[in-house]
Amino acid sequence: MHNKYSVINTPVHNVDGIAKVTGRATYTFDVQLPGMLYGKILRSPHPHAKILNIDATEALKLPGVKAVVSGKDTLGIKQGIWRRYKELCDEQVLPMDKVRYIGEPVAAVAAVTEEIAEQALDLIEVEYEVLDAVYEPFDAIKKGAPEVHEGIERNLNVTRHIEWGDVDEAFDDADYIREDWFKCGGQHHMCMETRACVSSYTPEKRLTVYASTQAPYYTQGLLAGVLGMREGDIRVIAPYVGGGFGGKFELDGAMFCSAVLSMKLFRPVKIVFTREEDLIASKRRTPMFYYVRTGVKKDGTFCARESRVFTNGGAYTGMGATALYLTGFFHSFPYKWRGYRYDGYRVYTNTMPSTSMRGFGAPQAMFCSEQQIDWIAADLGLDPIEVRRKNGHTPGYEVPGQAFIGSCGLDQSLDKIEEWIKSRGKLPANRAIGISAAGFMSGGIFNWFDTPYSFSSAVVTINEDGTVELHVGCQDIGQGSNTTMAIICAETLGVKVEDVKVHSGDTDHCPADLGAWGSRQTLMAGNATKMAAAEAKRQLLEFATAKMGPNIVYDLDIKDRWVHLVSRPEKGLDYTQVVKEALRGKEGQRIMGRGFYTPHRKGMISPAYSYMVQAVEAEIDEETGKIGVVNCVTAHDCGQPINPIGLIGQLEGAASMAVGYGYLEYMPFEDGKMMNPNLVDYKVIRAPEMPECEVIEIDTFEPEGPYGAKEAGEGLTNPTAAALGNAIFHATGLQMKECPILPEAVLNAFKEKREKEQEKKNA
Amino acid sequence: MHNKYSVINTPVHNVDGIAKVTGRATYTFDVQLPGMLYGKILRSPHPHAKILNIDATEALKLPGVKAVVSGKDTLGIKQGIWRRYKELCDEQVLPMDKVRYIGEPVAAVAAVTEEIAEQALDLIEVEYEVLDAVYEPFDAIKKGAPEVHEGIERNLNVTRHIEWGDVDEAFDDADYIREDWFKCGGQHHMCMETRACVSSYTPEKRLTVYASTQAPYYTQGLLAGVLGMREGDIRVIAPYVGGGFGGKFELDGAMFCSAVLSMKLFRPVKIVFTREEDLIASKRRTPMFYYVRTGVKKDGTFCARESRVFTNGGAYTGMGATALYLTGFFHSFPYKWRGYRYDGYRVYTNTMPSTSMRGFGAPQAMFCSEQQIDWIAADLGLDPIEVRRKNGHTPGYEVPGQAFIGSCGLDQSLDKIEEWIKSRGKLPANRAIGISAAGFMSGGIFNWFDTPYSFSSAVVTINEDGTVELHVGCQDIGQGSNTTMAIICAETLGVKVEDVKVHSGDTDHCPADLGAWGSRQTLMAGNATKMAAAEAKRQLLEFATAKMGPNIVYDLDIKDRWVHLVSRPEKGLDYTQVVKEALRGKEGQRIMGRGFYTPHRKGMISPAYSYMVQAVEAEIDEETGKIGVVNCVTAHDCGQPINPIGLIGQLEGAASMAVGYGYLEYMPFEDGKMMNPNLVDYKVIRAPEMPECEVIEIDTFEPEGPYGAKEAGEGLTNPTAAALGNAIFHATGLQMKECPILPEAVLNAFKEKREKEQEKKNA
Repeated sequence: MHNKYSVINTPVHNVDGIAKVTGRATYTFDVQLPGMLYGKILRSPHPHAKILNIDATEALKLPGVKAVVSGKDTLGIKQGIWRRYKELCDEQVLPMDKVRYIGEPVAAVAAVTEEIAEQALDLIEVEYEVLDAVYEPFDAIKKGAPEVHEGIERNLNVTRHIEWGDVDEAFDDADYIREDWFKCGGQHHMCMETRACVSSYTPEKRLTVYASTQAPYYTQGLLAGVLGMREGDIRVIAPYVGGGFGGKFELDGAMFCSAVLSMKLFRPVKIVFTREEDLIASKRRTPMFYYVRTGVKKDGTFCARESRVFTNGGAYTGMGATALYLTGFFHSFPYKWRGYRYDGYRVYTNTMPSTSMRGFGAPQAMFCSEQQIDWIAADLGLDPIEVRRKNGHTPGYEVPGQAFIGSCGLDQSLDKIEEWIKSRGKLPANRAIGISAAGFMSGGIFNWFDTPYSFSSAVVTINEDGTVELHVGCQDIGQGSNTTMAIICAETLGVKVEDVKVHSGDTDHCPADLGAWGSRQTLMAGNATKMAAAEAKRQLLEFATAKMGPNIVYDLDIKDRWVHLVSRPEKGLDYTQVVKEALRGKEGQRIMGRGFYTPHRKGMISPAYSYMVQAVEAEIDEETGKIGVVNCVTAHDCGQPINPIGLIGQLEGAASMAVGYGYLEYMPFEDGKMMNPNLVDYKVIRAPEMPECEVIEIDTFEPEGPYGAKEAGEGLTNPTAAALGNAIFHATGLQMKECPILPEAVLNAFKEKREKEQEKKNA
Repeated sequence: MHNKYSVINTPVHNVDGIAKVTGRATYTFDVQLPGMLYGKILRSPHPHAKILNIDATEALKLPGVKAVVSGKDTLGIKQGIWRRYKELCDEQVLPMDKVRYIGEPVAAVAAVTEEIAEQALDLIEVEYEVLDAVYEPFDAIKKGAPEVHEGIERNLNVTRHIEWGDVDEAFDDADYIREDWFKCGGQHHMCMETRACVSSYTPEKRLTVYASTQAPYYTQGLLAGVLGMREGDIRVIAPYVGGGFGGKFELDGAMFCSAVLSMKLFRPVKIVFTREEDLIASKRRTPMFYYVRTGVKKDGTFCARESRVFTNGGAYTGMGATALYLTGFFHSFPYKWRGYRYDGYRVYTNTMPSTSMRGFGAPQAMFCSEQQIDWIAADLGLDPIEVRRKNGHTPGYEVPGQAFIGSCGLDQSLDKIEEWIKSRGKLPANRAIGISAAGFMSGGIFNWFDTPYSFSSAVVTINEDGTVELHVGCQDIGQGSNTTMAIICAETLGVKVEDVKVHSGDTDHCPADLGAWGSRQTLMAGNATKMAAAEAKRQLLEFATAKMGPNIVYDLDIKDRWVHLVSRPEKGLDYTQVVKEALRGKEGQRIMGRGFYTPHRKGMISPAYSYMVQAVEAEIDEETGKIGVVNCVTAHDCGQPINPIGLIGQLEGAASMAVGYGYLEYMPFEDGKMMNPNLVDYKVIRAPEMPECEVIEIDTFEPEGPYGAKEAGEGLTNPTAAALGNAIFHATGLQMKECPILPEAVLNAFKEKREKEQEKKNA
């Protein structure tokens, strides 16, 4: 297809790619400040215990130790990212009263070397009164269970209810009803870069924080809250960030403890988590127990669905409240239901807090929904693709009370995946293809952070040589958003990508933006950038129009640095020349355009939704239970792609994470203790396990997105575990209701199946 | 006097003071980048020689050496800061053809350590053809003298002519004419921080430069010129800068060589000058030979002056062309002349280039003019103060064709100094008080750099908590300009200094500004800052007016964070509340105000002038020639002071430098070689030599300045050497015509005087 754009949808290497591959990119770990100290965090060995006393006397005697801080050195403010709702701000990063999970920070040391700080940890004596603990939501929700937070009855942290239509009537109307229970595990964000922060507090009461964060503005706001400072007195700089995946936009121990230590000492303090700390004491994808009841017509038409979810919230809320809502919303996705009812219960336990992670509740929802749909189709003898086609979202659909669907490429995705499946022909006996549909949001509309700022903002300033300073608040965490913004700016202004310098990750220089989560940046920061660049272009064209003197009904535009009549592109002026003349006209002031975006009139969830259908081809070894993922093909509607190679990178990354979630990444706990907090025992997908990945692009145009773009790269974590489950189902008949689908579970399922068959035979 | 301002003229500690005294301030020397190499520069041992061949073979064999570059690795572009005039762009920082002074860069090495780079220098073999050299302007200007630059006849680099009135007629009208020849020496800028730069060039063709510079925008533009790059592809960051004094706004060897090495290696390269390098191979205050002929009436009324100046320009132009004009202009200062004629000749020699330095040609001019005035007064039996009073500038005066005098506190200054002199009573025989008047500009109007930008620009952005981001392009080099801008911004917007965060020294984030030279920032960047803050306030007041609904003729203002009716200050709103409401009204976009300043209709030199009269009390030991400076009192009209303690710091700093220039700082050369390039032999003033300094503030209001402010801190380097000379004259009758006034010269003068007296007696 002819690309009507000059820059959009042309392959662009990431603007920071060279810095990264040449080792020039400096991460928080690389930050060195004069007089900097190193911090280490003492962590709770108990899942639940009162802190009776902390004695740092011996630790402070160790030469090189400069300070030890604990809860009593803080203002004791409870914080949380749901800033608008005080009751959900439930975490003191250094607790004063008690610890609620193994690994929770109890005290922090600053010393002249990391080694000395580490040694000092052993010298801090903490007197605990160990309390009864509770680890699983169904235990924690019982009457009389230990209270993780005093006064929170049955440890019920948050409940969420979604309902539309007359659910009971719709169930009554169903020909067939099926109900299942599922269990979905946690997953670690496993960023290449562990949590890290350098805080530098100075006597003039200003704090500078270098942090590995997905959202510098959140970090600024959250730190201001707990430190009793003004946001404006805190500068957050996010250097290059080595991944976030939903785990790095809350306040973490590295940030808080380094800040508190620095405020005590008036010296910079660096804290970098070890991999083990990152595994036991950051947060995780929310484990969920899912009850799903679905009623359908004989022909596969969906009538009603009802679901109840109990999540293992761990010790604190964090982003868990959002995940609880989104899993309920996406559990309806991407289908039309006459009646839909969801009840979610987030339950506190004495385990590591659960929070958002790439997919944000949707991978769990799809694992349950999409497998059950295949089982229902099988129960009714229907084609699972046909069932999905019959019930899927279509452009212009309104999810009642929830969402407006502007663009939707679900149908085309189903067609493409059907074609691909056909192309595979007959497969060996132990091998099958499973599919799953999914969709995802393009940023959230909710404002639990209670920001007064536009959700995204951008400033475009044109230098005298035509180069462009683009200041954005959105954060590049490796996903390539700086490149995306450079492309959008270049396209809009009519210049080349290399003309645009993107500045992000510094709250002193960049406008506020909610940051990198919920797949919001391409659409929201993209819209802000487009608006800023368009405004700058408008100002430039004033001068070009004045000079060229075209008929007033003629339009001017800029493309590839050529300012021209749209109707006669050969008539024009050099862009740089127009810039210089405009600069003269403006008495030497640079052209500056500002842009911003906050979603309006787009329902409660998101301004736009991506759609996709994925096929996973897997083979299962009946002897060992071993699963091999052979192919992973996704037909993906992400609207207009901005950068095709960036898109592929994002989608392949999502697939690898999703495959890992489906059958490898497992977080076993015993008595609240994670049993595999290292990269030997915690299995992330490696090259040998990675299947062939293919992405079939479905072209749609999202009216709300910049140049028609919407989400890509997060949503693809949603369908894979379900598609893998369906592949196993079609290959073996096994219905795997627990994620990850471990070989042991497959073996057991085989065994159970054989026993049942034996029983049947015997009967 | 009641201060009508809230912030202006209240004592404010420098905003970066704590960072500096606690050692947190990071200078270019402190910059560390991954993979950084260290550079060293090989310098010419010859004052004048052809470069026949450079062989780096052996140097490159030394383990750890990564590259050696010389002129042939560059584009060979001749550069200079008088960018608008090609013929004055005469310097290749790594010359291709020949060297023109001892210490000139010939080649540069990058290695993994500074020590290895240093060793490698010895291994570079340079074949020279030594040429005849010339060191003094009167030699160099002779026919047949060696040509420093081929084809430049008589080594005449620049000539400047200033003339007004009928000079000859005015001389005819004089009752008394006196003529003298003077000689003024060079002086080293002697910044605490030597020249330093870290350049980091990346394969995407962008260059980041951390440099100790007075003008990041100039550095950016000059580097772009010599490297064949776009300005916008070069980012110049000036970290904390340890002094400039006029020596750090041209391109220097550290900048250029580190950039060329980095471009060759794609790695960051740091070059920091040693003190010796800084002394022999940066630039210096321009040495001048001054002929002055002055005609006066019997009563001391000035009729005419004619002067001719020959400067030792050294090897290249740099800022020398400006210094040549300014010395001629300030030689008329601060007096009214019916006829004035000045001819300046800048002559190339094979010595270190001469350039601008604090005072910018005026200290030399005053040394000659102000001594001669005292001698004339003595010749005619007049009171030297009375002579100055009779002829001094007055507010509203126009220096014909040159300058408009908006405010002038010369008269009051003379009164105050006269009072002080009287208060000293009778002094011991070997002690006397000399005075000197002076004035100085508040930034230059000339645009030799050919910038298309406003001379100064500022952006004020208000955060939701009322804190302010102030982005300015002006550069803090230790003089406190960031504090000055914070004060002006706080006063204008009606907030406190601690609410304002000043951002400067980064061409990617800050608007262009010509930087810190010629005392331009308080007036020019101050005006831009005031305009930006006023515009932000205007936008805020829109919302306050809408809410308060006052009678339309009422005015609102903000002071100390209180938005109120001017006529009823108790009626108002909290500033932060108005900010929050404005933010809501603007859909979450921050209030942003922009300001800029370029002087217009203010003559050819400067938009405003400071005035001062200084008294120096000195004692002279006839036995040894030793000079002791006892007191240094200045009555100083700098308009409205912005920050009284910053002002005192600047004035005391200027006095110390000026006293040093008067009798200590001496740069002897032999065959083109500086004989004392170290801090033992080159004498800067130390605490024991520093006289008591007092500043008597003369209140005026400069209409063109922000809040009435104008120059302070540079002009005070102008009068001191002359006042010291006059003190010596009044104590001893000696007329010292060479600056610095060395003890040897005083001894010789005594001897000569005694011999003359003896001759007279004998006769």
